[in-house]
Amino acid sequence: MTPAYGALVPAGSPKPAFIFDLDGTLIDSVYQHVLAWSAALERIGLSLAVWRIHRRIGMSGGLLVQALGREIQQPLSRDQIETLRELHAAEFERYAAGLRPLPGACELLRRLTEVGVRYAIATSGATSAATPSLKALAIGEDIPVITRDDVRHAKPDPELFLVAAQRLNVSQSEAIVVGDSVWDLLAARRAGSLAVGVLSGGCGEDELQRAGAYRVYQDPADLLAHLDEVGVRTPH
Amino acid sequence: MTPAYGALVPAGSPKPAFIFDLDGTLIDSVYQHVLAWSAALERIGLSLAVWRIHRRIGMSGGLLVQALGREIQQPLSRDQIETLRELHAAEFERYAAGLRPLPGACELLRRLTEVGVRYAIATSGATSAATPSLKALAIGEDIPVITRDDVRHAKPDPELFLVAAQRLNVSQSEAIVVGDSVWDLLAARRAGSLAVGVLSGGCGEDELQRAGAYRVYQDPADLLAHLDEVGVRTPH
Repeated sequence: MTPAYGALVPAGSPKPAFIFDLDGTLIDSVYQHVLAWSAALERIGLSLAVWRIHRRIGMSGGLLVQALGREIQQPLSRDQIETLRELHAAEFERYAAGLRPLPGACELLRRLTEVGVRYAIATSGATSAATPSLKALAIGEDIPVITRDDVRHAKPDPELFLVAAQRLNVSQSEAIVVGDSVWDLLAARRAGSLAVGVLSGGCGEDELQRAGAYRVYQDPADLLAHLDEVGVRTPH
Repeated sequence: MTPAYGALVPAGSPKPAFIFDLDGTLIDSVYQHVLAWSAALERIGLSLAVWRIHRRIGMSGGLLVQALGREIQQPLSRDQIETLRELHAAEFERYAAGLRPLPGACELLRRLTEVGVRYAIATSGATSAATPSLKALAIGEDIPVITRDDVRHAKPDPELFLVAAQRLNVSQSEAIVVGDSVWDLLAARRAGSLAVGVLSGGCGEDELQRAGAYRVYQDPADLLAHLDEVGVRTPH
């Protein structure tokens, strides 16, 4: 007698859960962050080509200003770093009213809820910066949101994703991280999670693949259309 | 008797001349153009993810709005296109005072002049949009500047580069095009010129190489440091 289909599959095989980055992954805000950092630097008399700032977006704010300091070959003092962060927040405010969810973001999150797949949000930004975006996405109160304020070290350290998996009550290998920057992907690998890249933060496909993306989609709408590729079986 | 060194080299072997794109290649203005287009679209009630606008920057303004219309699956009327262009110009004004030459841009152009290598500027933008940038770069009056206003079709059509080579009095194969977008590289190939990419417009290295870049540098400063690789011999 041959065994029934599926009898050889070990019980408790992983059920996916998602951990989403916020800026550039669910919210269309990367370019605004880039120009806000550029204006902040300019206001304290420092200057860095804008594309170099873009390539640093998504990492922890502290690391970002350290990296910017290194690129302008002028280490920044603790005071300068604090001032820069405040100026960035103030400059970013100018764009806040115009921020929109990326195409498909709301639909993707709704679909995951419908099919019983859990997800969390994990952002290198502060809670105060994330709040308007979470509102725009209509994130329910039951969704775990982990921000810069909840961990010692943000991306590319894995802490944000480790806390997110814990809050979702899944093992790290069951969690699929979705992010738009190489820092998301590096942090995901360090956390031991599979990572999926999206182009909606403006990075090239190749950059994301080289940083370890298991798969790259254009934006949340494209990921939604291919959920089966990342292990979500949805009823027809 | 063996011939003297160099005797086998045909006389009149090509002497390089450069054709530079402006935005993102010599001036740090791409991200500002991107957000200006985004705001212009928003003002007429249209919305397109910002990264998709970024990937269109550098092509002719007419093609750009056509492409944006296609991406939002809503063809734009002639009036809408005209309005969009005016709104973009008005929104871009907000950033004009903060525009800076990219690192090494002024030094690169000065160096080329010092070693007797001619160059031209060829931009898909209008003359009015280019003027402040040309001033910031301290471009002399003897430098040919070809803008959108001088040709029927801008990039990725090759017309801008064909006119530029003519004005430099070199054949198309002697001209080396330097640009930050795939549209520069495609137009250069159609013109029959070698093209060099720079990352300073925010495109990935891989995107530029796949579009035909013979070599990719970070920015004008990096190109200046490697002029020998693109055929400019400079005295030590």
